[in-house]
Amino acid sequence: MSRLDETHDPARTSWVASAQGSDFPIQNLPFGVFRRRGTDEAFRGGVAIGDQILDVVAVADALADDAQSAARACGEPTLNRLMGLGRSAHQALRRALSAGLAEGSDLEDTFTRALVAQGSAEMALPAAIGDYTDFYSSIHHATNIGRLFRPDNPLLPNYRWIPIGYHGRSSSIAIGPESFPRPRGQQRPGEDGVPPFGPSSRMDYELELGVYVGRGNRRGHGIPIDAAEDHVFGICVLNDWSARDIQAWEYQPLGPFLGKSFATTVSPWIVTIDALEPFRAPLVRDEGEPEPLPYLTSDATLDEGALDITVEALLQTRTMRRNAHAPERLSLGSYRHAYWTVGQLVTHHAVNGCNLSPGDLLATGTLSGPEPGMEGALIEITRGGKAPKTLANGEVRTFLEDGDTVVLRAWCEAEGAIRIGFGEATGTVEAALD
Amino acid sequence: MSRLDETHDPARTSWVASAQGSDFPIQNLPFGVFRRRGTDEAFRGGVAIGDQILDVVAVADALADDAQSAARACGEPTLNRLMGLGRSAHQALRRALSAGLAEGSDLEDTFTRALVAQGSAEMALPAAIGDYTDFYSSIHHATNIGRLFRPDNPLLPNYRWIPIGYHGRSSSIAIGPESFPRPRGQQRPGEDGVPPFGPSSRMDYELELGVYVGRGNRRGHGIPIDAAEDHVFGICVLNDWSARDIQAWEYQPLGPFLGKSFATTVSPWIVTIDALEPFRAPLVRDEGEPEPLPYLTSDATLDEGALDITVEALLQTRTMRRNAHAPERLSLGSYRHAYWTVGQLVTHHAVNGCNLSPGDLLATGTLSGPEPGMEGALIEITRGGKAPKTLANGEVRTFLEDGDTVVLRAWCEAEGAIRIGFGEATGTVEAALD
Repeated sequence: MSRLDETHDPARTSWVASAQGSDFPIQNLPFGVFRRRGTDEAFRGGVAIGDQILDVVAVADALADDAQSAARACGEPTLNRLMGLGRSAHQALRRALSAGLAEGSDLEDTFTRALVAQGSAEMALPAAIGDYTDFYSSIHHATNIGRLFRPDNPLLPNYRWIPIGYHGRSSSIAIGPESFPRPRGQQRPGEDGVPPFGPSSRMDYELELGVYVGRGNRRGHGIPIDAAEDHVFGICVLNDWSARDIQAWEYQPLGPFLGKSFATTVSPWIVTIDALEPFRAPLVRDEGEPEPLPYLTSDATLDEGALDITVEALLQTRTMRRNAHAPERLSLGSYRHAYWTVGQLVTHHAVNGCNLSPGDLLATGTLSGPEPGMEGALIEITRGGKAPKTLANGEVRTFLEDGDTVVLRAWCEAEGAIRIGFGEATGTVEAALD
Repeated sequence: MSRLDETHDPARTSWVASAQGSDFPIQNLPFGVFRRRGTDEAFRGGVAIGDQILDVVAVADALADDAQSAARACGEPTLNRLMGLGRSAHQALRRALSAGLAEGSDLEDTFTRALVAQGSAEMALPAAIGDYTDFYSSIHHATNIGRLFRPDNPLLPNYRWIPIGYHGRSSSIAIGPESFPRPRGQQRPGEDGVPPFGPSSRMDYELELGVYVGRGNRRGHGIPIDAAEDHVFGICVLNDWSARDIQAWEYQPLGPFLGKSFATTVSPWIVTIDALEPFRAPLVRDEGEPEPLPYLTSDATLDEGALDITVEALLQTRTMRRNAHAPERLSLGSYRHAYWTVGQLVTHHAVNGCNLSPGDLLATGTLSGPEPGMEGALIEITRGGKAPKTLANGEVRTFLEDGDTVVLRAWCEAEGAIRIGFGEATGTVEAALD
């Protein structure tokens, strides 16, 4: 835990009073892209503090020298250039912003003039995502899904060796809150052998985290496991919406395609890898699991490669919304149950020479846990649709209905640390278009 | 064939004398991005004519009014904005450039000043490729590959209904000629159950074409089959390099990943969909094949949805290069044998609401044909490595060795039309890095 510094000090508070006790205390400082709503201002990078956003480029001149280049990179409409500056630049900016926002800072007046209320801001996707990769990090999810297809042999033999992943669709990633029409597609044929075509009737969410790549690597050159997290900018919440019926019919032999590519929703804020330092955890491997291959392991990976990020999925149906009922929890788990760490995903992805670029997004895959209630998707909760779930208001769901809103949240808590939150990734499934 | 116009007229010749009989006669006019080699000029769009490149933005003012916006879009370092202008803008530019390059044009002096010799130019990737999708269009390839895994049941039941595809890696796409180190990765375990890790020993090429998307579609809104080709800018040659041993161990259940993502090589020039008009062909379906579902079919799809583009793969080993032996042919086929047309790929990709964007790249998948000699990859030629191929100089190959160069070419010929070529996509496999 030697990487803790004054920015993580639980005693530090901000002169932005709303910061204390919010998702965005001074220990967090997540990045997003914003402008004042209803204006044609340029979108630019900002940092959330309480219910405010700090316009970072507006305070660049006031910051310590080593933070200025990173602060100026926040003047662009995506954070890709900031991300590409590398971890030491991100750390310098974090130290400078934390100092300026801390109670007693002599930059309070300068910073105050650069605050925009989150309630009056419009957010944008924080990066131009060149490539999006979705992994399959949770052995509990892989086992739950595998059991539906192969009850006797749920986990394929490669799972315990390879951080399984596949390329996803970048273009349809959007920040929440958002909505999209139910996708249409081919489904598995019945007795006549002809695939029916129409709106998906097995729409699902997947509770995931998304990892934004910071500094990239040159094509042909891998990333050693000890350097992997230096290539990470930060983490968001991510909903990998899935049309299970389209997916089931199309996915052999080349993997998921149209069952996923219609929409992916991410939270507007990115919690930096440095903000997550107090929430590290040892990599969990059950008795009898093999050691990872040498290229995927290190002492730090085993001792503190995991992150204890609590993840939650909630559902608000149209009826619940009409009756002003709060969203109801469907899933509650933690990223610490994952089989593979962020560093292992990065190193594996680049081991063949594949070049990662700033702003690339790596999703963890559905984060299901070992206990009931930790299943991160309806297909697991309802056992493939065979065990419908009755909600508190009496409504029943096997999969998502039109008008259903899914809210994903994440946060971190640990003894001796201030709780930090990720905000929400919220999306609503609307009726299919004609 | 009503879409033929004066730009396809076989009697039209260019005052650029090298155009006649080359890959790039006046009937072709493919687009690329170039600058004068050894300068720090900005990269910009150009059109190949014989052994020259026409600097399109430099002649914009001289063109017909309806061609000027497209010509000005060629002033950018990628063709994405040109691509997004849509097919009628592309057609207007094609007519204007053809007129100016035609024998007898009064723009000859103006155009001559805007020519750069290909021999003195440096080319760049012609688009910022937001998303790259690789399809599996050839039923012959799918059958050949399936037979290696499932001799009795080579073709999965979805193949005849769905244009099977998967998301590929954009970041590692480069124009040829290029080289890259042999990828490293995990391979299938032997008896000890531990996957070996090291350089791939089953490196292969895949002979494909790549389709650049022109105008995009809004997320949520599909593309009707009759409009599909209006969303296509043009076609290049593409090598989907594949590490078969890495692929075989990793690809279940989510599809190809590191077995492909280390490198994809494309040709520098993009032949527009309009230049291909004289080479249309009926969609080939054997007796007993089902009709495509309604969303994937139309009279035009059945009658002339296919394209007769000859595709060829050649190998030049290090020994052949040392002895100044020309590359030796490995594969010769045609895109007309594909099961799915370009229009079907586009419409299927968007049917779930997935938004395609200008510059996205859709690869056809390996274009194997029905006859011996038409197999588009070594894994097919050598039957999974079991039938090594002896080359003319006595060398033997099961898969690619270090120093092997693969040259992919494509061209179109038809009665009553002038032959047009795509140029080459050339890449060399180098030794793995330590």
